[in-house]
Amino acid sequence: MKEVTPVERLIDQLSTLPSIGRKTAQRLAYFILAQPEERAVSLAESIVNARKKISFCENCFNYSEREFCDICENNNRDRSVVMIVESPKDIPVIESTNEFNGLYHVLHGVISPLKGISPDDLRIRELINRVGKGEIEEVIIGLDFSVESEATTIYISRLLKPLGISITRFASGIPAGAALEYADSMTLSQAIRGRIEI
Amino acid sequence: MKEVTPVERLIDQLSTLPSIGRKTAQRLAYFILAQPEERAVSLAESIVNARKKISFCENCFNYSEREFCDICENNNRDRSVVMIVESPKDIPVIESTNEFNGLYHVLHGVISPLKGISPDDLRIRELINRVGKGEIEEVIIGLDFSVESEATTIYISRLLKPLGISITRFASGIPAGAALEYADSMTLSQAIRGRIEI
Repeated sequence: MKEVTPVERLIDQLSTLPSIGRKTAQRLAYFILAQPEERAVSLAESIVNARKKISFCENCFNYSEREFCDICENNNRDRSVVMIVESPKDIPVIESTNEFNGLYHVLHGVISPLKGISPDDLRIRELINRVGKGEIEEVIIGLDFSVESEATTIYISRLLKPLGISITRFASGIPAGAALEYADSMTLSQAIRGRIEI
Repeated sequence: MKEVTPVERLIDQLSTLPSIGRKTAQRLAYFILAQPEERAVSLAESIVNARKKISFCENCFNYSEREFCDICENNNRDRSVVMIVESPKDIPVIESTNEFNGLYHVLHGVISPLKGISPDDLRIRELINRVGKGEIEEVIIGLDFSVESEATTIYISRLLKPLGISITRFASGIPAGAALEYADSMTLSQAIRGRIEI
């Protein structure tokens, strides 16, 4: 059997990244090889450094290098509203809208019997504890509209309802700028049911 | 000024890679953070390892971890035909066609007055030396059809012509499977001039 060369190993490793196919991995590898050595080392160091230093905010379970993340430590944020998201990567997406000034709570997944993910595997207990402290008045469920997210939404709503707080979710409807004819029927029917007066 | 966190630094570093925009870099960074630490370390090691071990084949200037690359060392390859390419990353593209069984010669660029790249910055002298040894009967110029590549093609042909070897280049024409109406007029006129009998 032919020995795997360092370049082939690099291409293999790069192709394990999401949305990086074999061809892109090859292109990236050749780009890295053409760089000065210190640039390759610096890229490698930033990978190890980010991964080693990262842990979870003890309040919201976002990634954080300290006990609490920047958002939880920011006194200008509204501590009475908490948005529940599936994963830390959802947070920059929401932040980029500038529409939300509350805190977050990262579940680290959604309930999925098929993947063997039960409520105990998620940060749901910690969510209940946070809400139980009395400061939170509204929980926004910031999950998408997949079947698993829907099941998780229902599960969490049932747990939170008795605590007497407001529970909301994203409006579902036609995306901005999208042509009606391309909307699927479920989105369309949700848009009709959720219609607003103008 | 806000301090750059390790995660932001990783995103910055990843966005310097070709075809990786800010959003993709963010997605890749979050993927790396969600991996077990040993996988992140292994990716980083493969980057440093590939870059540190790589040097150039002393015959064709392809990337190689040894004195001569796999292709130059392969006794089944036809040593009388040499294909000139701009960069090592062109070699796997040509190899994937299974159409070429000769050796390569990597120029590491093309002549570009704008970028200040002159013939002396390329591996042209080494090409002349290789051809001068007498084993090579045909040189295929495997460059694309950009203005700079054309200039380089003309320059190299003039140098090689007196050595009495055959100099060829890629056929230019309509790409396989492409609709005629989408071909630009230069490609189309090259296809007409280079027409073949059927």
